[in-house]
Amino acid sequence: MSKGSLFVISGPSGTGKGTLCTELLKQDNIFLSVSATTRDKRVGETEGVTYYYTDTESFKKMIDAGEMLEYAVYSGNYYGTPKKAVCDMLEEGKNVILEIEAQGALKVKDLLPEAVLIFVVPPSISELRKRLTERGREDSAEIERRIEAAKWEFSQSPKYNYVIVNDELTRCVDETLSIIKAANERQQMIERLLNEI
Amino acid sequence: MSKGSLFVISGPSGTGKGTLCTELLKQDNIFLSVSATTRDKRVGETEGVTYYYTDTESFKKMIDAGEMLEYAVYSGNYYGTPKKAVCDMLEEGKNVILEIEAQGALKVKDLLPEAVLIFVVPPSISELRKRLTERGREDSAEIERRIEAAKWEFSQSPKYNYVIVNDELTRCVDETLSIIKAANERQQMIERLLNEI
Repeated sequence: MSKGSLFVISGPSGTGKGTLCTELLKQDNIFLSVSATTRDKRVGETEGVTYYYTDTESFKKMIDAGEMLEYAVYSGNYYGTPKKAVCDMLEEGKNVILEIEAQGALKVKDLLPEAVLIFVVPPSISELRKRLTERGREDSAEIERRIEAAKWEFSQSPKYNYVIVNDELTRCVDETLSIIKAANERQQMIERLLNEI
Repeated sequence: MSKGSLFVISGPSGTGKGTLCTELLKQDNIFLSVSATTRDKRVGETEGVTYYYTDTESFKKMIDAGEMLEYAVYSGNYYGTPKKAVCDMLEEGKNVILEIEAQGALKVKDLLPEAVLIFVVPPSISELRKRLTERGREDSAEIERRIEAAKWEFSQSPKYNYVIVNDELTRCVDETLSIIKAANERQQMIERLLNEI
């Protein structure tokens, strides 16, 4: 069993990353990582399945030790991706997907340089504006603010392993699956060469 | 004129990186970077063409400031690749090639995360042994030492953007040219999206 790969998917708001990830997760060997949180466990949730539950002090220690690939705070609770949880899944041969914003994606690459960074872009800015408007979640001022914010993300794109244009969902899913397949084949080839030594 | 890209080519001794680079440099828009050196200028050499000439103190200061993408010392003289020289060529729209060993390649990626790292591997270890033997430069003990050293390099391969199998030179050159073309097209697309904002 070859090691799996970690794929970090990000891109400007409204490019359809979420839909892409939902489609990818329908595949047998593609999984979401399990996050850690400091919020209380709720009825029906399972440790290590829904979340890893921990306290704020331990969570902060993990951040300081570089053991948290990325994290965020919502309503006073920490949520994050423990490096070890991801690496364990990779060792089991699973492909792991993280859908996070660009700043987090680049931090993951620092902590785990073998992560495959995929940047999803819209076919054009006018199409992005159209999608954000049709989605109807943000008013036009917020939409323009998000498009302005995308400038920084676009400028970071050379640091990504792949840039995918989300012009049509099915094509975009197929392209991403090819990237995942290529990463797995490459891992197998390297393991074969290492075994030969 | 779009920005060019930097391609760092490395791989185990005997995989044919040198021959690959020689072929790539026959293309119109692919250049080798100009190195800096502390050795004296010789007759017929030109500042900024053959080398950038500097003194040891300035060279060391550049290393400390992270301005030298990689460097080495031969016969008491320093040789290295100044980051600025590479970035200037990229700004001029040139594609730049660096052929260096794996440790240097990973250091370049730290200093210039947009560098495209290409790892060239042999189709098999037995083929690598055959090529090193036929080349006749090293005795069999040295060949086995180099193959053993390749282990570390192979283990670093997930950090590379691309892994290319050098099974047949023409095919390997074509694959690398496709990578360079794709990087250029991607740069153009991102510049187009940025211009649209």
